[in-house]
Amino acid sequence: MSPDAVSSPLARALPKGRQTRATILEAALSLAQRVGLEGLSIGALADEAGMSKSGVFAHFGSREELQISVIRAYHERFRREVFVPAIAAPRGLPRLQSMIDLWMNFTSAELDSGCIYISGAVEFDDRPGPVRDALVGMVQTWHGTVRRAIDMARECGHLRADVDAGQVLFEILGLILALHYEARLLRTPDAMGHARAGLSQILARHRA
Amino acid sequence: MSPDAVSSPLARALPKGRQTRATILEAALSLAQRVGLEGLSIGALADEAGMSKSGVFAHFGSREELQISVIRAYHERFRREVFVPAIAAPRGLPRLQSMIDLWMNFTSAELDSGCIYISGAVEFDDRPGPVRDALVGMVQTWHGTVRRAIDMARECGHLRADVDAGQVLFEILGLILALHYEARLLRTPDAMGHARAGLSQILARHRA
Repeated sequence: MSPDAVSSPLARALPKGRQTRATILEAALSLAQRVGLEGLSIGALADEAGMSKSGVFAHFGSREELQISVIRAYHERFRREVFVPAIAAPRGLPRLQSMIDLWMNFTSAELDSGCIYISGAVEFDDRPGPVRDALVGMVQTWHGTVRRAIDMARECGHLRADVDAGQVLFEILGLILALHYEARLLRTPDAMGHARAGLSQILARHRA
Repeated sequence: MSPDAVSSPLARALPKGRQTRATILEAALSLAQRVGLEGLSIGALADEAGMSKSGVFAHFGSREELQISVIRAYHERFRREVFVPAIAAPRGLPRLQSMIDLWMNFTSAELDSGCIYISGAVEFDDRPGPVRDALVGMVQTWHGTVRRAIDMARECGHLRADVDAGQVLFEILGLILALHYEARLLRTPDAMGHARAGLSQILARHRA
């Protein structure tokens, strides 16, 4: 099921209801970053948002709809803070570099709260269903964007003609995941420095 | 608290009790790989092992002791399947290469069940306490072993004198995490090929 197939009460809501829904969603995102998507329940969210369970339920008809809405809200935040500023950079290597720098900064800013794309993967990678589908859809969209930026840097003549975008994406994803793992679990002092140094190596290897 | 500070009923048990405990632990490890360390409860484990709750409780006095015992059992399996065969390889680069190959194979063999070191990180990275301490202790022990193998490859003259073991470990950890993420969540067809290619690049860059 595509994330768009989930009918959203938002479309039918009045401005006031829309505002309330946005407030609940903000609380839900914050809660999910602390306790995971699986920790999200209508009850816990009602406590977090200081509302009644029936008030939350009026906006999100089920726990699953709530989880999918949180994934979409997270994706929108990611798009706004990483993708949008990155495409302001000139095409080719500068844009790719900016995209990955912003991705690392976004991950780093979340080290206190946890990344939904990473924690959600562990929670849902073996649970088929619409929540997993929504998560995979959002991650695939972002990875496709990075792959296209790598291809564009090649077309601009900034990266070598034989660069394998899938391989480069895999290695960059590894740096992001190691940054999250080392900083959050192991508290390695210079995880961000290691991630940046790794990126420099990857880009240097493929520079035309 | 160090993992060793958890008093284990094993030490006081008779051979029969020891056998039962080992059986329960095997069931607990299998359950934790499917539902996470947080999904482990005395009740769920009793169902899994086909025992009474009081029977399980007699061997693991608390859920926390059960979780820590599972982490230690997992570490022992990891040691047996990765560390022990790796040190049979000649010192230096062959041993390091063997160690990482075996680590990747171990991760790959677990793609159907999930890695406790990865899922446990997401579950416990922001929950201080003895379970997190046990997890961090085991992971640090393994990472220390890999760092020493990198240093030894340098001392043997197989890797360059300026190799930064912490940086190399970070990049290798990234490949392992990306392998787990891409294969389990995204079902990328050649995640293992990407991980191996990434390792070749890292080692080639530092080869003396």
